[in-house]
Amino acid sequence: MKKFAVILAGCGVFDGAEIHEATMTLYAIMKNGGIYDIFAPNINQHHVINHITGEEMPENRNVLVESARIARGKINDLNVFKASEYDAIIFPGGFGVAKNFSDFAFKGANQTVNQQIEQVIKEMAALKKPIGALCISPAIVAKVLEGVEITIGQDKGTADAIEAMGANHIKSMHGEVVIDTKYKVVTTPCYMLDANILHIADGANNLVKAIFKLFE
Amino acid sequence: MKKFAVILAGCGVFDGAEIHEATMTLYAIMKNGGIYDIFAPNINQHHVINHITGEEMPENRNVLVESARIARGKINDLNVFKASEYDAIIFPGGFGVAKNFSDFAFKGANQTVNQQIEQVIKEMAALKKPIGALCISPAIVAKVLEGVEITIGQDKGTADAIEAMGANHIKSMHGEVVIDTKYKVVTTPCYMLDANILHIADGANNLVKAIFKLFE
Repeated sequence: MKKFAVILAGCGVFDGAEIHEATMTLYAIMKNGGIYDIFAPNINQHHVINHITGEEMPENRNVLVESARIARGKINDLNVFKASEYDAIIFPGGFGVAKNFSDFAFKGANQTVNQQIEQVIKEMAALKKPIGALCISPAIVAKVLEGVEITIGQDKGTADAIEAMGANHIKSMHGEVVIDTKYKVVTTPCYMLDANILHIADGANNLVKAIFKLFE
Repeated sequence: MKKFAVILAGCGVFDGAEIHEATMTLYAIMKNGGIYDIFAPNINQHHVINHITGEEMPENRNVLVESARIARGKINDLNVFKASEYDAIIFPGGFGVAKNFSDFAFKGANQTVNQQIEQVIKEMAALKKPIGALCISPAIVAKVLEGVEITIGQDKGTADAIEAMGANHIKSMHGEVVIDTKYKVVTTPCYMLDANILHIADGANNLVKAIFKLFE
């Protein structure tokens, strides 16, 4: 049975992991016959956003503790992750990826990726194990894996930043996946497009299916 | 096109809405051809739970603001809800329902239901419009609608409390729904059983399908 690691960046689209993408990723893994463990880094969120007003709240929240909400408490500190124990890894999206795992949301192509996240991606790539990334997450993978081919959908500004990092951006629509066979990186746009929850379920499922094909 | 109202109790199984149940409810509504609006009451959470340790955190969070994380910001204060504008209403589960919408988690059959929640349930029932409730939510409906027939799965303590309120409890397993045709109340156990995310998707989908049959 194929074992996936799912890496969360908090709990909520504007400062953490996008909840529908995270949930649909877990669902797609099990629906396609896999199992999963969930991880998050034990770091502070960049900030806390009121998801109604979009304004910053005067609070501090921890990425691991908030991610545990999506994981129903069954979560591991990313510092115990071992690439040797997993067949594939998936990063759901959400601004938390671009704010907590990196500063891509603020610095674009000049981003610095969190060292732990960078190491996890490099370890999986070195072992030729598939890496899935939804929504904005491919932009972080693009910084770590030189010249990788990915998609974040249609957004020109984000695509330009990705190409400025030396990666290759392919435009995509709802549910479509882009597969880099060299790095075994699979990406899909999800909420980087003006999507609904059916598109997210479709994108997550197609991404997981594509990863299963890479196992063959 | 049938229009659903989904009522959330926060964001996270131990102090708010259960995230997988909420997400799978939204997914099931759209998959079966419906549309939805999301609501939550503008009240403080009973408390904030660290979802890793299970311990209370010294914080205050608002049910409407935290629910907005699941809703991606597209949420309404429950005080603007009009039963006349919706064909059906659904309450996903999570301890937040039994802590924020009521004090069932602490007082069992002697619970007091939040007045706004009680009113919404009564208004929908008066209009003979379907009410869906997942996981622990049926225990709140049981207090409001006298003699309603519901399920919360297999838990004897909870079932006893439900029967002590004058409701009729039917045991159920993964994905099964109990339909009270008099009140048009549809319930399913979800994480009140030792379930995985496939069971949750199944339960939410079967509940929504049963509601669509009640429209016929």
